[in-house]
Amino acid sequence: MNQQSRPAPVQTEGVTETLCRWIVSLKGADIPAEVRREGLRTFVNWLGCAVGGARHETVDRALAATLPFSGPATSGVLGRTERLDALHAALVNGISSHVLDYDDTHLKTIIHPAGPVASALLALAERQPISGEDFLTALIVGIEVECRIGNSVYPAHYDRGWHITGTAGVFGAAAAVGKILGLDETRLAWAMGLAATQSSGLREMFGTMTKSFHPGRAAQNGLFSALLAEAGYDSSLRAIEAPRGFANVLSEKQDYAEITEGLGTRWESALNSYKPFACGIVIHPTIDGCLQLREELGARVGEIEAVELRTHPLVLELTGKRSPRTGLEGKFSVYHSAACALLRGDGAPTAFTDEVVNLPELVALRDRVTAVADPACHEAAVDIAVTFADGSRVTKHVERAIGSRERPLSDAEIEHKFRVQSGLVIGDEAAARLLDLAWRLESLADSGEVARMAMAG
Amino acid sequence: MNQQSRPAPVQTEGVTETLCRWIVSLKGADIPAEVRREGLRTFVNWLGCAVGGARHETVDRALAATLPFSGPATSGVLGRTERLDALHAALVNGISSHVLDYDDTHLKTIIHPAGPVASALLALAERQPISGEDFLTALIVGIEVECRIGNSVYPAHYDRGWHITGTAGVFGAAAAVGKILGLDETRLAWAMGLAATQSSGLREMFGTMTKSFHPGRAAQNGLFSALLAEAGYDSSLRAIEAPRGFANVLSEKQDYAEITEGLGTRWESALNSYKPFACGIVIHPTIDGCLQLREELGARVGEIEAVELRTHPLVLELTGKRSPRTGLEGKFSVYHSAACALLRGDGAPTAFTDEVVNLPELVALRDRVTAVADPACHEAAVDIAVTFADGSRVTKHVERAIGSRERPLSDAEIEHKFRVQSGLVIGDEAAARLLDLAWRLESLADSGEVARMAMAG
Repeated sequence: MNQQSRPAPVQTEGVTETLCRWIVSLKGADIPAEVRREGLRTFVNWLGCAVGGARHETVDRALAATLPFSGPATSGVLGRTERLDALHAALVNGISSHVLDYDDTHLKTIIHPAGPVASALLALAERQPISGEDFLTALIVGIEVECRIGNSVYPAHYDRGWHITGTAGVFGAAAAVGKILGLDETRLAWAMGLAATQSSGLREMFGTMTKSFHPGRAAQNGLFSALLAEAGYDSSLRAIEAPRGFANVLSEKQDYAEITEGLGTRWESALNSYKPFACGIVIHPTIDGCLQLREELGARVGEIEAVELRTHPLVLELTGKRSPRTGLEGKFSVYHSAACALLRGDGAPTAFTDEVVNLPELVALRDRVTAVADPACHEAAVDIAVTFADGSRVTKHVERAIGSRERPLSDAEIEHKFRVQSGLVIGDEAAARLLDLAWRLESLADSGEVARMAMAG
Repeated sequence: MNQQSRPAPVQTEGVTETLCRWIVSLKGADIPAEVRREGLRTFVNWLGCAVGGARHETVDRALAATLPFSGPATSGVLGRTERLDALHAALVNGISSHVLDYDDTHLKTIIHPAGPVASALLALAERQPISGEDFLTALIVGIEVECRIGNSVYPAHYDRGWHITGTAGVFGAAAAVGKILGLDETRLAWAMGLAATQSSGLREMFGTMTKSFHPGRAAQNGLFSALLAEAGYDSSLRAIEAPRGFANVLSEKQDYAEITEGLGTRWESALNSYKPFACGIVIHPTIDGCLQLREELGARVGEIEAVELRTHPLVLELTGKRSPRTGLEGKFSVYHSAACALLRGDGAPTAFTDEVVNLPELVALRDRVTAVADPACHEAAVDIAVTFADGSRVTKHVERAIGSRERPLSDAEIEHKFRVQSGLVIGDEAAARLLDLAWRLESLADSGEVARMAMAG
């Protein structure tokens, strides 16, 4: 019965209320320059991933199911020729941006923050003009909201089995779109309530196409939540903290200070990180070290007799595939990854195709890579020893892999990542033009321009 | 990381696999006649509720948000003139069927089973012809699936704060549509996986428009899950029982025998019940008894001096509103409900309008109704004592209220309920024609005919 479950009257200002008040009152100028800069890097990285994933069969199948139901085709599917209504475009672009497991990571929660938020905003930006400045402000707001909500329940929530990118992402998308729509505090709280009641995504789906469905659906559901609230569709005003609200129902841990404290001074969105390599993060130190060795060895990489790795045990547990046959299996093979970095200098999606994984010279070197698990070696580190025919050895120690908070990707490295993956889909020239436009987001009168230029053909 | 969370290889046949195998192999003729009859009663009751709720402002606002994004408008909004794509129609009709809290109830789980399943099926039936016979078979399959999954986690799942009509309903909709689409076992399991990963709906939303959103979104998400699976979008094959699957993540209780045992012999769908009155079930014994007294007293109801109720304490806790001012408040007033049943013989939505709640003669009698909470009185019972000016008393004891499993609504009572609520929306003549057509569902070559006739104007 309804009233049986109504929460007790709020005694003090609620968590949802505090968060919504901050979102409504925030102005773009209140966001520090370095935070806006990280937001722009997040946008560029997300755009490259969304274009880069566009040709994956996961996207083909999502499109096959959505096209027959699409409304006014206002919004483009990035990296492709199809257009969809804004809600479905948010879904498909969110899927595309995550399908290569190459997107951004908020390391404290393992949330991939951009997918749910940017996918919703850019789809909406083609329906109603949004200035680049407002777009970036809303993107940062959305990421701030989802990461703070994630912090409040992580790790208990994730350990229970929730895919936090989906469960927290829907709040970020709703907040970002609510900011763009100019919702007042009450309507924004309704949008958060509608987001909370759609918060979902199970880790059981990892390893299937449904994993990528999570950020996509979070984008679509968050966008729809804000649109419903704008239309006056009401909801709870305390969806995050109520006894039967999000945090209590979906988590054993609730640390609301993570949501309400330091708003506007501590920026979770500025802690975002970007994957340099298109595979599980535990292999990154190995690829990083092998790329450095390749630089130092020059032509001698062709004379390598054997490669020995000393890694954290988790590396072999998760990516110990000895003889991968497909590109996907290659992502779970530290042996292939090391050989490919040494011989081809590659850790991008191009390193994990069926063709490359089966190249004879790569297979030959891969079979001469050995790995030892050493509990004393931490996850972000690796020791690599390369032996040559003449018996000489060269070693390389990586303490913190590229892409970690200690060694963030430079703008140039983000650009390289962008060019490689999106060039494969829309061509190098178009990729270069798109990259240039993306960096200029804040100066654009209509951010939808980015989506139009990101389409194929 | 993906592979980190992959379930161990399945050793024995899984719960999801067993359920999907049964769904795929089931033929309409395998369903006993009395089960099909209860399914038909469920359909008629649902249709009346969907039409009856169509003019609620909750539906107005849902439509305002969805119409701008609607795809090919194949499917009608019941009780209205608007048409939407099948996905959005499933959403809005699901909202409409629940918004008056007048729909069906699977009493073991408090699931309102028809909303998620019938809303998805009828919206699809206008997009692709579905015979009435196949429609009824799929409806029964969907209700069987959602109630069995509900049984497996109830009450722990509900107690945690999940609105089980939404969380279990999405499986029912996916199963029913999957049956219509003829999905094989693998694709049907994918559909269940996509449903599981969208399973959501928080009890915190009770008392807001978002409560009705749950059956609507479950219908839409279940329909979309089956369409994605049909398009080859893959998912987990053991979404219900996997370590990080539905039952383990969303509940502390997992009783899989409730899902897998007695399939085809024990029918949960045949246990469905229908609300005789448009208000919380705890007031039903009082309204039932007052309606019986009205019959017995005839003209003397006008001479009633006082009414004394002896009820279960929960009745006053939940519906003790002494002086309701609005129709909605009237639903939470056992005093108004008793007076309205005695004076007007009404417990339908017509008894809970702002106008009726404020009628002077009703207010006058309402103020002479007293109620005593008696822990010895069980929830389905009530003692009513009516006193007249001459001091004479008439008493009525109700042991099991009409609408309970012990005293199910007759077909005639379901018809009366249907006529009253849908007549208010589409007119009495159209309601009578629609009722006649709905009873003939199994004989229809195209069940979409029902939706077309259920539209307004």
